[in-house]
Amino acid sequence: MSPSPNASAAVVAEGHSKLITLLSDAIGATYVVTDPAAMMGRLAEDRGLYTGTAIALLRPASTDEVATCARLCAAAGVAIVPQGGNTGLVGGGVANGGVILATDRLNRVRDVDPTNATMTVEAGCILANIQQAADAVDALFPLSLASEGSCQIGGNLATNAGGTAVLRYGNMRELVLGLEVVLPDGRVLNDLNLLRKNNTGYDLRNLFIGAEGTLGIITAAVLKLFPKPVTRATAFVACDGPDSALALYTRMRAQNADTLSTFEYVERMALQMVLDHAHGCTDPMDAVHPAYCLIELTSANAQDTLDARMEAVLEAAFETGEVRDAVIGASESQKDALWALREHLSESQKPEGASIKHDVSVPVSRVADFITTAKAACLAHMPDMRPCPFGHFGDGNLHFNLSRPKNMDDTTFLAEYPAFNRIVHDIVHEMHGAISAEHGIGQVKRAELRRYKDPVALELMQQLKSAIDPANIMNPGKVL
Amino acid sequence: MSPSPNASAAVVAEGHSKLITLLSDAIGATYVVTDPAAMMGRLAEDRGLYTGTAIALLRPASTDEVATCARLCAAAGVAIVPQGGNTGLVGGGVANGGVILATDRLNRVRDVDPTNATMTVEAGCILANIQQAADAVDALFPLSLASEGSCQIGGNLATNAGGTAVLRYGNMRELVLGLEVVLPDGRVLNDLNLLRKNNTGYDLRNLFIGAEGTLGIITAAVLKLFPKPVTRATAFVACDGPDSALALYTRMRAQNADTLSTFEYVERMALQMVLDHAHGCTDPMDAVHPAYCLIELTSANAQDTLDARMEAVLEAAFETGEVRDAVIGASESQKDALWALREHLSESQKPEGASIKHDVSVPVSRVADFITTAKAACLAHMPDMRPCPFGHFGDGNLHFNLSRPKNMDDTTFLAEYPAFNRIVHDIVHEMHGAISAEHGIGQVKRAELRRYKDPVALELMQQLKSAIDPANIMNPGKVL
Repeated sequence: MSPSPNASAAVVAEGHSKLITLLSDAIGATYVVTDPAAMMGRLAEDRGLYTGTAIALLRPASTDEVATCARLCAAAGVAIVPQGGNTGLVGGGVANGGVILATDRLNRVRDVDPTNATMTVEAGCILANIQQAADAVDALFPLSLASEGSCQIGGNLATNAGGTAVLRYGNMRELVLGLEVVLPDGRVLNDLNLLRKNNTGYDLRNLFIGAEGTLGIITAAVLKLFPKPVTRATAFVACDGPDSALALYTRMRAQNADTLSTFEYVERMALQMVLDHAHGCTDPMDAVHPAYCLIELTSANAQDTLDARMEAVLEAAFETGEVRDAVIGASESQKDALWALREHLSESQKPEGASIKHDVSVPVSRVADFITTAKAACLAHMPDMRPCPFGHFGDGNLHFNLSRPKNMDDTTFLAEYPAFNRIVHDIVHEMHGAISAEHGIGQVKRAELRRYKDPVALELMQQLKSAIDPANIMNPGKVL
Repeated sequence: MSPSPNASAAVVAEGHSKLITLLSDAIGATYVVTDPAAMMGRLAEDRGLYTGTAIALLRPASTDEVATCARLCAAAGVAIVPQGGNTGLVGGGVANGGVILATDRLNRVRDVDPTNATMTVEAGCILANIQQAADAVDALFPLSLASEGSCQIGGNLATNAGGTAVLRYGNMRELVLGLEVVLPDGRVLNDLNLLRKNNTGYDLRNLFIGAEGTLGIITAAVLKLFPKPVTRATAFVACDGPDSALALYTRMRAQNADTLSTFEYVERMALQMVLDHAHGCTDPMDAVHPAYCLIELTSANAQDTLDARMEAVLEAAFETGEVRDAVIGASESQKDALWALREHLSESQKPEGASIKHDVSVPVSRVADFITTAKAACLAHMPDMRPCPFGHFGDGNLHFNLSRPKNMDDTTFLAEYPAFNRIVHDIVHEMHGAISAEHGIGQVKRAELRRYKDPVALELMQQLKSAIDPANIMNPGKVL
């Protein structure tokens, strides 16, 4: 005879209570938060797509304490949701029961080695602080994204973060040499590799990078540093649309690959929202144009004449009609002003009402085709919808955002989310693209992943998950 | 009652005979080679450390045929050793029974997309042919190593090959976007990702890259292409030894990181062997110096004045004493002649008698310290031994080769292999280095791996192996 539901709930509650006591003994009662009000900021993301529940919020201060937490939770069969700065967008850090393990107290820079061009940091270090620590030794840590003032490197690692420097330096994955990871059973993997070349067995670090906390808890990482750029040329360029932008990108890459760091794209509709809503942003050109590119060249060599290089390519592109007009920032403040047009894109869409967002990528050779095709298909579905495609054109990664028609209410528009998803993702898939370029899968895109991913890849992912986390302790209900 | 050994052997032989028939039906009898004489070239590596045995050599022509071979072998419980150009150095491709699956007939370039800067190739493509296919679209595929005329990209992938372009472009792992892999049970994983940004689930490709064929058979890959350098500056620089070389490397990287492609190191002893034995190689300097660096800057921008950049850094380094003398190649043929001094290093050690080799890496900040410490320790063990350290200094990767004393026979010297291994590897380990930088583990370094690798990393590797290849069909006895 099985126990009644109430008796069973009581047993569970007693187990949780015992676990809380053990966790408090291990890391200190102050750092085992069970008051729901005190946990509030940890139970949902900013976008508010999901609100979670948790038995407790754990704030361990060392790798050993993380390992102890993992061991105790595993023994109690209680799930762990690792959480960094909680700046995610896909519900990956939202708990559905279990404990939240926050990494904010794992915040030491353990080592900086300028000659080896590496920095060893703990997972809870805030990205902006890491950038500053690199800068202090005259080096660059290139990862840069909107939330850098609050996101933590552990979250950047778990989600394989992208951002605005991928074209030159790669994704988070490409910026890591080694990891320290607490496995679901509490063992500590020391793979803090400092080496550029190391062929001693399977690559383990890449398994955890981008796994969104479903395979273990990243507690520290060895990051790559780069020579600090000392000069840059920044251009804001008007063009006819995506085809011209692609031609210009190809030309710019062929001539300036060594220094090309940024190639972003934005259409007029999205730029107009910035001009209308972002404080202090003005159109750098007199005429109105269909689309724009923000292009930046950077170099660690002070003698490089990047403005001249930029001008040479843009002049040639002007001759062919790829470029309609261009502004090259003449001072640092002018360059910053051009960047501000890009940086305010996301927030400037908010005052215009609800937005249906897609973080997608296609091969760079298809990116113009994708914009044209997907815009046409979405407009066919809803002619008054306002497409605001923008993003990392040179990476083939677009934030294909759709703002609601001016005269439609948010709820009616958002009811079309699944329909627009299907339209956009089908086109992405047909073009060998990805339904998540830099935000991850989390909870939001689980069903979409099952629809589009190679079935053998899905099976293999599940085999790996079962091998490393057979009890499904780590961030259950995410990704897979 | 168990069958007698003879009866058991007969059962096995009958099973093998059935398997051969099934394989012949599947891929054609011509491509199932069982004649030991015809297999001879496939049973050992050039260095001849191990000689293997095999039931058959399979030469499938397509991914589907590879999958069928895998399914049939798995059903028969027969091991598969994947083999590319058979240019490995650590016994990773030598079979101990089972079948050898050669990839030479999987040799199509499936697709080249210059705008996306990718090329999709099959595993059996020879590296030099891939370089040429990239060149044909005015692009660079940067992987470059001594065996490029015969090694296959599948082998480069399985061993995460290094070579002379790692400083600028990374290892093989960094040059890959996607893979197609036949799993041990015959399923085909299609992860032929063409995208720069793709966060749709676990990273699977890196699991197979560098796994030395123990997890599956790589049948195709998406490779990254780069803008083709159109100008280069090449310098051969004399210095006092490793400390000066490290100071010069740091200076060169700070000034020329965007363009620094090569920073190789060689001591006089090793250079002297090149001058003595390599046809046409002459000392570019009048005086004899303790050590040398080969440095190259490259750029895709024709206007870059790389010689001037190189001179500026070398002049500053001359002032501080880091540089004793320097030759900058004035013509392409002079540059090639400077490269020849580097390229003939390995073969020029052969006429000097037996050599004990170590392919090791340490953090770049420790590389000078490593050379000094390891040389001293090895000379303490055998004062007449002739140390010939050379290699990829800027990657922290040295080929720490030891030539036998002039008056010792090879056998006596080679008996010291384990002793020298212990001396060198202990120092490497103490400096957080790797006992295999670019050659892999294979059979040669299995025991050493167990000695030095993090025990949890070893456990995790075994968990992954068991999850993906529970019957241990794929290249058994290698790595783990």
